[in-house]
Amino acid sequence: MTDDLEIAPAVETATPRHLAAGEVGLVAPRDYVHALPFTFKSGQVIPGFTLRYETYGTLNATRDNAVLICHALSGDHHCAGWHTPTDRKPGWWNNLIGPGKAVDTRRFFVVCANVLGGCQGSTGPSSTNPETSRPYGTLFPFVTIRDMVRAQKLLLDHLGVTELHGIIGGSMGGMQALLFAIEFPYFIRRVLAMATTGRESAQAIAFNEVGRQAIMQDPAWNHGDYAKDAGPKVGLAIARMMAHITYVSDASMDRKFGRRKKETANSDAYTFDVQFEVEGYLRHQGQSFINRFDANSYLYITRALDQFDLAHAYGTLEGAFAPVEADTLVVGFTSDWLFPPEQNRQLALALLRAGKRASYAELSTDLGHDSFLLESEELYAIVRGFLERDQPYVFDYSI
Amino acid sequence: MTDDLEIAPAVETATPRHLAAGEVGLVAPRDYVHALPFTFKSGQVIPGFTLRYETYGTLNATRDNAVLICHALSGDHHCAGWHTPTDRKPGWWNNLIGPGKAVDTRRFFVVCANVLGGCQGSTGPSSTNPETSRPYGTLFPFVTIRDMVRAQKLLLDHLGVTELHGIIGGSMGGMQALLFAIEFPYFIRRVLAMATTGRESAQAIAFNEVGRQAIMQDPAWNHGDYAKDAGPKVGLAIARMMAHITYVSDASMDRKFGRRKKETANSDAYTFDVQFEVEGYLRHQGQSFINRFDANSYLYITRALDQFDLAHAYGTLEGAFAPVEADTLVVGFTSDWLFPPEQNRQLALALLRAGKRASYAELSTDLGHDSFLLESEELYAIVRGFLERDQPYVFDYSI
Repeated sequence: MTDDLEIAPAVETATPRHLAAGEVGLVAPRDYVHALPFTFKSGQVIPGFTLRYETYGTLNATRDNAVLICHALSGDHHCAGWHTPTDRKPGWWNNLIGPGKAVDTRRFFVVCANVLGGCQGSTGPSSTNPETSRPYGTLFPFVTIRDMVRAQKLLLDHLGVTELHGIIGGSMGGMQALLFAIEFPYFIRRVLAMATTGRESAQAIAFNEVGRQAIMQDPAWNHGDYAKDAGPKVGLAIARMMAHITYVSDASMDRKFGRRKKETANSDAYTFDVQFEVEGYLRHQGQSFINRFDANSYLYITRALDQFDLAHAYGTLEGAFAPVEADTLVVGFTSDWLFPPEQNRQLALALLRAGKRASYAELSTDLGHDSFLLESEELYAIVRGFLERDQPYVFDYSI
Repeated sequence: MTDDLEIAPAVETATPRHLAAGEVGLVAPRDYVHALPFTFKSGQVIPGFTLRYETYGTLNATRDNAVLICHALSGDHHCAGWHTPTDRKPGWWNNLIGPGKAVDTRRFFVVCANVLGGCQGSTGPSSTNPETSRPYGTLFPFVTIRDMVRAQKLLLDHLGVTELHGIIGGSMGGMQALLFAIEFPYFIRRVLAMATTGRESAQAIAFNEVGRQAIMQDPAWNHGDYAKDAGPKVGLAIARMMAHITYVSDASMDRKFGRRKKETANSDAYTFDVQFEVEGYLRHQGQSFINRFDANSYLYITRALDQFDLAHAYGTLEGAFAPVEADTLVVGFTSDWLFPPEQNRQLALALLRAGKRASYAELSTDLGHDSFLLESEELYAIVRGFLERDQPYVFDYSI
């Protein structure tokens, strides 16, 4: 997920943004502390974990109006609103979530948590290992998408949610949404997975591997053993710069930067410093990332992405989807070359072959993989329509 | 250009490969020493330079049967034959060049030189700076595609070539071929440019920039000042691994590796070591590259690629091609996403708009950018047909 590639410039208005109608306004994260041992898919156990999360809207009396938002590799729990009036940017999916927006917080109780293994407040490799009083580093158990999903289920139980009205995610968030519907079929009514895949291609694994090598070959990585706020910042920045290219598209980069040179650069001069605007932009992406992300988390989460393989785990993709009870909608984006439309279509087709209520929408965009963050009335209408349509099927809780 | 992605496995035969019919056999590189000052496009001057080159076939009496082969970023002068009977592989375009092959060495005198700025024997940043008796490093002048072309013209003059029957190149080699026809219009009769572009897109610049950052952020780079055979090997390997992904295609990686795991890897175990075959393959690409390539050369040559912009340099693409006298053929490959077909088509269209004899061929392949190295009878037939067809136009040397 990119930093501010397509964020509209701030506009001076009479009303501060966080007080404007249609916005969730000021929000504050909270911590859910799960004070019981948690066993990972790998078999490894930690004595407990914390998930940092945010909620917007109100859980209704029947406790069934919750919508869980699942974030992508570099995302976090802060998906809407502002933490302070002076925040430069709102949460990463603020365009989608709010009173009257596509995910309408007047109607839905929206929950978003930083994933297990993450580094934005949830327990992960940068958290303190109680056995050593130092960061876990690579002693942290290998984390999978299933571990992330199960941890979020425990959070929802804690919040008193009895069933999810819906679950929405893009990219790795889409993987979580699909797996949630497989693991907890009677807990979840609507799954909306965007720009995602049932398993990464060799090329996607390859890009992740180059990023991991950039981190692990940085001497400051030190086999994962580094102090908090230290670590392989050079390698992490390289990994992020490269990954960023895969989140956008050739067309969007050409539209935004083309071959324009920095104003300070003499176009006929030669230098290894920033010469083209796109270079400065990429360096900014790398630098801002190292201030907010932990390199070990990057290793763990990219490995979880690589390992995610529904067909392998359940025999076939149709077999994986066999337990699903939810209505499902998969959205692919024409310009996404990381998890291309074909991989999204395959998910919807497998759901249909498995006899599930499944739809597929493909949106023509030129923003690449990050198109799921697009400011698009077409996307909003699809999300709203899917969340608010009547569901023919009602779970029978009388048994 | 990749190492052995699609090289056919060696087959045991009665005749050693280098003695087989249809092969150029054992070859030896030579050095052309230009012992006069050379002024780069940047205005900087070096007191002289060496180009390492190879030739196959014989220059005819009229000295007009030469075909110049131009290599890509990571290529070199060794494009056909074997240096020793035990060489693991022949030259990089051996499938195309030889007696009876598409570039028929019974008929043509084939020349290929390592580019100026390179590191395979030609003068570049790793060469000894006569003023300091140490490697030039970043004191080497910035090199451009034009500098590479002009240096090769001096080599051809030295060899007694009075005009080129043809010039052939893929990727950066295609840029050289086009610029050669612009700079020396009456010296060159046929230009065959494959998988190339008149200027890189923002995405291509972005990938090069990540590679350069990986090198320059490696402490061993030391601002370009490192001993021969030392240097930022970690950064160079990262740059190469990433670049390699851009030379192939998602489809070809999926066909070759898919999600297969290493035999030694327990598919349900988790590790940051090599787990998927594609990871091991990429690491091999990185490691083999650092043994044969200089990191500063990588910086210089990628910068030359980024800076190449025919439309900018000559006002318009048609304006750039105005002086061209040669027959031209541009070949694009459907799966090339680094210099995609559209960019190749634009070159042919601009040549046509400029009133030139130009053709465009687009081949359906799934090998990506490196498709120009493909073992393809269709490609061979196109190359042979273009090189051997009669030319309606004959230069008038009577004036």
